This record gives sequence, C-alpha cells and structure tokens, in this order.
Amino acid sequence: MIELGPSSRLLTKSAMQKSLNVQNQEEYISFALGLPANEAIPLTLIQRSANYYNNGSAIQYSPPLLKLKTQIKELVKQRGINCDEEEIFLTSGAQQGISLLTRLLHNKSRIIITEELVYPGFLQIAQSLEANIITISSCYHTGIDLNMLEEKIKASQTKPSLIYTVIDGNNPLSLSLSLKKRKKLVSIAKKYEIPILEDDPYGFLCYQQEQLPALKAIEQDYVCYIGSFSKVIAPALRVGWIIAPKYIIPKLSMLKESTDIDTATFSQRIIYKFIDGGYFEDHLTKVKDLYREKRDLMLSCIKTFLPPSTKCIVPQNGIFLWIELDNTIDTEKLFQEALKKKVIIIPGNAFAVPQKTTKDKNIANNCIRLNFSFSNYEDIEEGVRRIGLAL
Amino acid sequence: MIELGPSSRLLTKSAMQKSLNVQNQEEYISFALGLPANEAIPLTLIQRSANYYNNGSAIQYSPPLLKLKTQIKELVKQRGINCDEEEIFLTSGAQQGISLLTRLLHNKSRIIITEELVYPGFLQIAQSLEANIITISSCYHTGIDLNMLEEKIKASQTKPSLIYTVIDGNNPLSLSLSLKKRKKLVSIAKKYEIPILEDDPYGFLCYQQEQLPALKAIEQDYVCYIGSFSKVIAPALRVGWIIAPKYIIPKLSMLKESTDIDTATFSQRIIYKFIDGGYFEDHLTKVKDLYREKRDLMLSCIKTFLPPSTKCIVPQNGIFLWIELDNTIDTEKLFQEALKKKVIIIPGNAFAVPQKTTKDKNIANNCIRLNFSFSNYEDIEEGVRRIGLAL
Repeated sequence: MIELGPSSRLLTKSAMQKSLNVQNQEEYISFALGLPANEAIPLTLIQRSANYYNNGSAIQYSPPLLKLKTQIKELVKQRGINCDEEEIFLTSGAQQGISLLTRLLHNKSRIIITEELVYPGFLQIAQSLEANIITISSCYHTGIDLNMLEEKIKASQTKPSLIYTVIDGNNPLSLSLSLKKRKKLVSIAKKYEIPILEDDPYGFLCYQQEQLPALKAIEQDYVCYIGSFSKVIAPALRVGWIIAPKYIIPKLSMLKESTDIDTATFSQRIIYKFIDGGYFEDHLTKVKDLYREKRDLMLSCIKTFLPPSTKCIVPQNGIFLWIELDNTIDTEKLFQEALKKKVIIIPGNAFAVPQKTTKDKNIANNCIRLNFSFSNYEDIEEGVRRIGLAL
Repeated sequence: MIELGPSSRLLTKSAMQKSLNVQNQEEYISFALGLPANEAIPLTLIQRSANYYNNGSAIQYSPPLLKLKTQIKELVKQRGINCDEEEIFLTSGAQQGISLLTRLLHNKSRIIITEELVYPGFLQIAQSLEANIITISSCYHTGIDLNMLEEKIKASQTKPSLIYTVIDGNNPLSLSLSLKKRKKLVSIAKKYEIPILEDDPYGFLCYQQEQLPALKAIEQDYVCYIGSFSKVIAPALRVGWIIAPKYIIPKLSMLKESTDIDTATFSQRIIYKFIDGGYFEDHLTKVKDLYREKRDLMLSCIKTFLPPSTKCIVPQNGIFLWIELDNTIDTEKLFQEALKKKVIIIPGNAFAVPQKTTKDKNIANNCIRLNFSFSNYEDIEEGVRRIGLAL
C-alpha cells in the first residue's frame, strides 16, 4: 500500500464536494452551495464566443492572454482599483488564485490569520499546508473585530504569513465591511507588514447603486486581490485573476506552471471574446437584477415562515443570507430535520475553523447559511416554508 | 514589500515559459517546445462538441464527468491497463496530475528519485516542495540504470517518497524502455514499497504496430499512472487523468478541490462529446501518421546536414529526438549559434537536475533535444540545415 505524506492527513472533504455528490439531487431544494443560477449562465453566447476562433492555435499551448488582462484592468475600475497589466495574473478560477498566493506567501511562521467563520475552500488550502490558523471573531452586523486582529498580531511571536478575508458579500456572513473598517484593516496590514489576501468573488454582484472600494483600491502594497468570472459568467470555464505587486507575478507564474502549465487559454479566449463582443455589461445587469429579486423574495419568505426572533441583514453583495435563529436552536439538528423535508441548508458551525482537533461547538451553532442565487422563485418560497416547518 | 515564503526562492523560470515569451516568434524555426502541430488540433470538431450542449448546467459547477472516466477506462486498454472508474481521477492536464500526486506522496524523507536528465516541469514541482532529488544515470539507448536505482534506494537512510519516470517517448531522451526493464523497474518499486509516478503523455503517440504495456499494466499497487489529452487532442482544454489505487482518489479529490475547485467540467464535456462522436480514433491515426512522417523527415535531414558522428535513436513514441553530437561540441554554444540563424533548440544540459546550487556541466553537454511535431515539413528541413551550418 502506498504511504501518503503528512499533509494528506489534514485534508477533509468539503460541504461542496459532499453536496455535489448527493444522489438524486433533483429531489432536494438546495440552499447549500454557492452556485450561480443555471438560467444566469450565458451558454449560447459562450458558444458563439468559442466559435469565433478558426485556427487550431486557439487551443494550442500559449502564454496567458494579454488582451484579457487589459479587459480586467478596465473592469476592476468598478472596484476602485487602478492597475497595470503587469500586475494582473490569470488563474484557473479564484480558488487557484487563493491557493497559489497562500503557497507563495506561507512563511516559516506557518501562521495564517482568518475570521473564525471562514470559507471552507480556504480552510482546505491552509490544511494542505499544515498551517497554524489564528482566528479573529466577527460581529454578524459589522464584521471582523479589528482590535482583536491587532492584539493577536502583537501577541504572535513570529510574523504571520497573511490575513485572508472576503470584505464584500462575506462568506459565510454575507455582510460588507464599512469604509472606516476597510481603512483600518489595511492600515493594520501595512503597519505590521502582513499581506492581505482579498478574496472578492462577489464584488461585482452588488445590489445597490453605491459600492465601497475594494481593499486593493485603498492600499496597493500590502493587498493581493483575487477576482473571478465564475459567479458572473460561468464557473466551469475556470477563469479568475490575481492583482498583486509586480515583483510577485513572475513567482506566481513559475508556481502556476509547476501546478498546471499555465496555458488554459481557450477559456481565456472565450471570456475575452464574450467581453469584446459587448455581452458582459448587459449580462451582469441582468444577473444582478435576478439575484436581487431572489434575495428579496427569500428575505420576505423568512419574515413569513420563520419565527419573529430570526435575525438577518440585507446583504449588499453576494449570493448568501446568514441567518441567526433563536439561541436555543441547534442548527446541526435543524440540518437533519430539513434534510428529511428535502431541503439542504448549511449549519453555521460548518464554517468554524477547527481548534486543534475539535470544532468549537459554541460558534454559530444557532445560525445557518442559505444560498439564494441558485434556486428558482418557487423553490425559494417552498424551501423556506419547509425550514419553518422543520423548526 | 511583501515577504515571500521559502519555497519561492527555489522556483525558476522554465525553458517553456522563456520560449513562449520570445518576441517575434514567427521569425524563428522552433524545435524547442513539446507542442503538438497546429494543423493536428481539431478545432472545428472541438467547437462542434462544445455546441452540442444546450443548457447552462454544462458550464455550472458540477462533479467530475463520470462518462469521461468510462471512456478513459476503455482508452487505456490500449496501454494494457485494466481499471475501474473509481481508480480514475480527472485533472487539468498531466502537469496537474503529477503536481497533485507529488504533493500527496511527498513524505518526511523529502526525497524524490528521478533520472539525471528529466522533464523540467517535474523539476519545478520538486523545487516548489523543497525536495531532495536523488538522480539516476540513464543510457541514451537503454534508459534508466536500474542497478544504480536499487543501490541508491538501499543507501538512502529514509524511504524516498516516489520515483518519477516517463517510459514511452522519454522526455528528453526519446527512448522507450524494454519490457525486461519495465518488469525490473516495477519489481524494485514493489520490493522497496516506493510508488512510481508513471508520466505517460506520449503513450498514445506510438509509431509502430506493437506497443509495450505501461508500467501500470504490469504492476497495479505501486504505480500511479498519469495520462493526458493535451498531445493527442488539444493542450489548452487542459484535460488529463490519473489512474491510482482507489484509496488515494478521495485524498486527490480534496487536494484538487483546495487547488482549483475540481469542476472544470466544460472541457471534460467537450472531450467526452468528441470521443462519443467517434472522432477520436480517426483523429489519433491521422496525428500519428503526420508525426511519424515528420520524425522520419527530421531523421533523414540529420543524416544529410549533420556530421556523420551524430548519433540518434529512432523514437517509437513521442515528439522529440535526442541527438548526441561529437564529444567536442558544447551545445550551450551551439544553442547561441543556432539562435543567430533563427533556430531554437534546447541544449541537453538544460534537462540536468541541478546538484545543490549548480548544474553538473558535464552531463549531456554534447546533446540537444529537438521537437519534430510542431514545425511543418519545410521548416524541419530548413531548421536542421541551419543547425548543420551553426555546427
């Protein structure tokens, strides 16, 4: 029998993988995963963009597509970011961006800082690197506790490798950080010279007129920004990007080459043509209108079908609701009850960073995360109704 | 300035990246990279396969495509391999397969075994893991020295993590191992319980009727096989696969999810439809006929234009020629001379594993690797003629 290395022991199956492998998915209403709506995926326009090319060189080995970088440079101005093509690095989705940067920045301290409730995909990366994770508490209304962040940095004997965060449409908390807290967060990063990984899959899914700038727009030197087309065009094309200081890009390029050669240029060319054809802006507007309606419908269903003690902010960005139920509710049990009624939810504790060997059972045990982008209107109403029954 | 972790220091730019970024490529005849011929890339059929889908779910997040695994299971019978779908793991190209397996198998010994001349993409992986590499000599005609392999394993104080090898169309040596040596190699792996990573990008590009079985066909338990559609369909789709013992697959799946989510299912669906449409077998036959002709043309040009002392085997598989020039020739210099004549070659020493800090300058210094698949007939003739002039 082949013996696996030490990192393999820490890897655990994510909710994502478990849910994707649920049998007879069609029988369930799923609010579990961060999926875009099938009806919001522009397959025909994607195919038209793919059909534009007429030479085999379109799917030959070739360097990352510069023209797409130029488009991204324009696009991220919506997030307040000014950058050059030389600061942009194309990835196979945001997850790869996070993974490559984390591997590259992981220093001898082996310390990584996250919120105590965190995107499980980031946890997997940290686990694969055998990292020590320092967790910071977050308020469900105002986000990460920056005083605690600074205290824990001061208390750390060696300088942590990085701070990982999602500041718009936080996963799982669904909130967006205030401008004041954004400024304070980057000032801490700068003061202690600890880079921030700003994971921004939901930055372009903003449901109101005014949007606050990305951290990268406020602070250039200590923020590495990670963006993606997965939620706004299509997941399975796997195209995302990093914006990082220029001196990091060649190292990213070498690490990516070792990982998967760095020549997935057919998907890059499809996205390029999709944007170049002028489809993107209209498409994004439609997607935002659709998701805003779904969000509002789910919020109104929660008022109708869940107890009056239920608390939930109105997310300005993203595709999730974070729902705080009465303190007496154990959402691990609620998850089981909901499953019997053919609804899939994720209990809040599933996002808690494991402490040494066990999860702190007290964290977010009365909370659930619901996705509102994937299900259709009927299923949103029926699904929330069933959660009400399960309660 | 952001401080990078220790692994970043070891990463170096590969010949691949350097060459892809050469300005005004069209002015050069390049025998440098392992590119398939543009004319052998079936873009129209790929587009037709992509156009077959008519629902957004084709580019939604979804689990790895089981139907493609079933096709691969049938396909690898050509390599003598019998396996189940549960032993097949889909990757984003062969490079990702090698990278994931190496990360997973990398044990506390930090030791990896390769031939002393090795595919640079594997070196990058080993470097990113700060591995200690034990190198084994190879004969240019018969391949890896298996006595030395066994001696070095015995002499190692801790058990090495893995043995990396390409046995058909070896890169860079272009040779294929005899059946006797295949059997001995796997018996050593089994005896010392060290897994072999069998990297097989060229197994399906076989230019003769009879083909020897893959190592995986001879030994199931201690061989992890890595295959790819990059050389036989199209590189930029990034679809490859691993065949490994069943108990390794869930761990691979978790590691891949942390790396890039593991849902690049549009490319997988395109390849599935391409094979399902019955295009693959005809296409592969055409590609092999084309490459066999190019190989024979290049071999005859070498006879015509290079000195009579030049030695070169006739490769049975793959896309490279390994050419041994007179001992007095320094091919680093020849590379510069050829470049002046607008031909790109790779000097043999570029494939040598660095020993501590410097490369052993004596290894393969009189050799060059030439690719014969990418250039057209005219360029093959003209390119080899110019190498003759450069000599």
